Amino acid sequence: MDENFAVRIRESFARQGLMKLLGAEVVELTAGYVAIRVPFRAELTQQHNYFHGGVSGAIADSACGYAAYTLMPGDSSVLTVEYKLNLLAPADGDELIARARVLRSGRTLKICSADVYALKNGSETHCATMLATIMCLPGKSDRPS
Amino acid sequence: MDENFAVRIRESFARQGLMKLLGAEVVELTAGYVAIRVPFRAELTQQHNYFHGGVSGAIADSACGYAAYTLMPGDSSVLTVEYKLNLLAPADGDELIARARVLRSGRTLKICSADVYALKNGSETHCATMLATIMCLPGKSDRPS
Amino acid sequence: MDENFAVRIRESFARQGLMKLLGAEVVELTAGYVAIRVPFRAELTQQHNYFHGGVSGAIADSACGYAAYTLMPGDSSVLTVEYKLNLLAPADGDELIARARVLRSGRTLKICSADVYALKNGSETHCATMLATIMCLPGKSDRPS
Amino acid sequence: MDENFAVRIRESFARQGLMKLLGAEVVELTAGYVAIRVPFRAELTQQHNYFHGGVSGAIADSACGYAAYTLMPGDSSVLTVEYKLNLLAPADGDELIARARVLRSGRTLKICSADVYALKNGSETHCATMLATIMCLPGKSDRPS
Repeated sequence: MDENFAVRIRESFARQGLMKLLGAEVVELTAGYVAIRVPFRAELTQQHNYFHGGVSGAIADSACGYAAYTLMPGDSSVLTVEYKLNLLAPADGDELIARARVLRSGRTLKICSADVYALKNGSETHCATMLATIMCLPGKSDRPS
Repeated sequence: MDENFAVRIRESFARQGLMKLLGAEVVELTAGYVAIRVPFRAELTQQHNYFHGGVSGAIADSACGYAAYTLMPGDSSVLTVEYKLNLLAPADGDELIARARVLRSGRTLKICSADVYALKNGSETHCATMLATIMCLPGKSDRPS
Repeated sequence: MDENFAVRIRESFARQGLMKLLGAEVVELTAGYVAIRVPFRAELTQQHNYFHGGVSGAIADSACGYAAYTLMPGDSSVLTVEYKLNLLAPADGDELIARARVLRSGRTLKICSADVYALKNGSETHCATMLATIMCLPGKSDRPS
Repeated sequence: MDENFAVRIRESFARQGLMKLLGAEVVELTAGYVAIRVPFRAELTQQHNYFHGGVSGAIADSACGYAAYTLMPGDSSVLTVEYKLNLLAPADGDELIARARVLRSGRTLKICSADVYALKNGSETHCATMLATIMCLPGKSDRPS
């Protein structure tokens, strides 16, 4: 395992324009586990003024990808193959948090799950769950060519 | 069927803060079919400067939801139950377009599929495909309460 | 909740010809939770002599459906809307067990997850995981018309 | 491409005990495309006497896997990573047929879709659709070790 995954992942995350646009930040980062948080703004809503499912999907996808990436070699690149997202409840809250972990770590593929919670007045609502397949591309730089 | 679905859907779309933030617009809207387009900006990228998978997911999700909503009564509300997204190729382009259609239209549930294409120099790359379950909530307003 | 769900579900399961053909049985059945077990036979294999993924899929699907059905009214019928299955490891064992629980119980839709384990020489291998959407059809008999 | 994929796939299919138990046969087999058919029997049903969703899942899974395998080297092995199945209509028919094709053929991963139809009195009902990720294991025999 690459001991410096935290530095590598924070740099990669900082290059994701979409995460900055959404106001997302990595709030937990350990081997096989990543959490990403987004505060509420009107720019992130669907038509009922809750967080749009696309925000849940985007932060859960990034969280799964980076949870998998913690277990990959330092000179590899990470790629989302696919994910499935079930929306469980309206994402009604002051912030949204996606917590992702690696369920199965193969050399090429990592299977991850993420749960998304809406935080409001100190309580959490489980609003979405994701099951994702993430791929390791060995020897391919994480930076744009 | 509600003949005025186009007006209803354009108003609903206009209330989705996230679609405005992404710069997305509805470019096709017929019964059972919706296309949503997003021009490229650096704010929409992942770490390799391509469109982030979260953008593909968000516009495909909205396109599926509204394709289903064209077939729902005027006084109903629409809800994404779940979707699965397969990323097929890097979303490398000047714009991204999601085209969604209803595969199966039940009274309560509509099953939809969407294909996402990256447009670059006049050619299209098929970069993602979605399979989604959308729910009709009868007698529930599409506007925030 | 229908207190007699156990009787109702065992009768429904007994009418599933496929479960009998596979040699499957319900081994746990409580509110919101069902486990289904299948002993190994050569008739259940894929080309490497492990359990076929179709067996994992079938018992996990039935387990999710009946876990959801425990929480439905006695005069309703249950329907699988969709599921996603990730295969995590070869299903190499003397028996296969699918354990399903309800993650979110709405009136019309129940979201369930199942985990499938292969048992060999007293130890369990987590070989598949499912995320499923199950629907309640109120007032519709579970028996053939 | 391996020109002899048809022989290789028919031999592999013949070793799948589950396909024999279900009474399934390969009825079409060309590069990137496979169809698998199953006649109705009471042993394949769910509680309403239709084909069990597990049968649709199993034959669609095998059809996706073998459609992908047509495009893999002769000395490789094939593995289903994951699939999602949407059930669209009751599988009420005299036979069930799954038609699978490769949507995207990468070196390691092939993304496939399958549609399942129930045939009754000469007409087809589209009863399920699958989106699957299939993996190539190069240099690994398709036979049991």
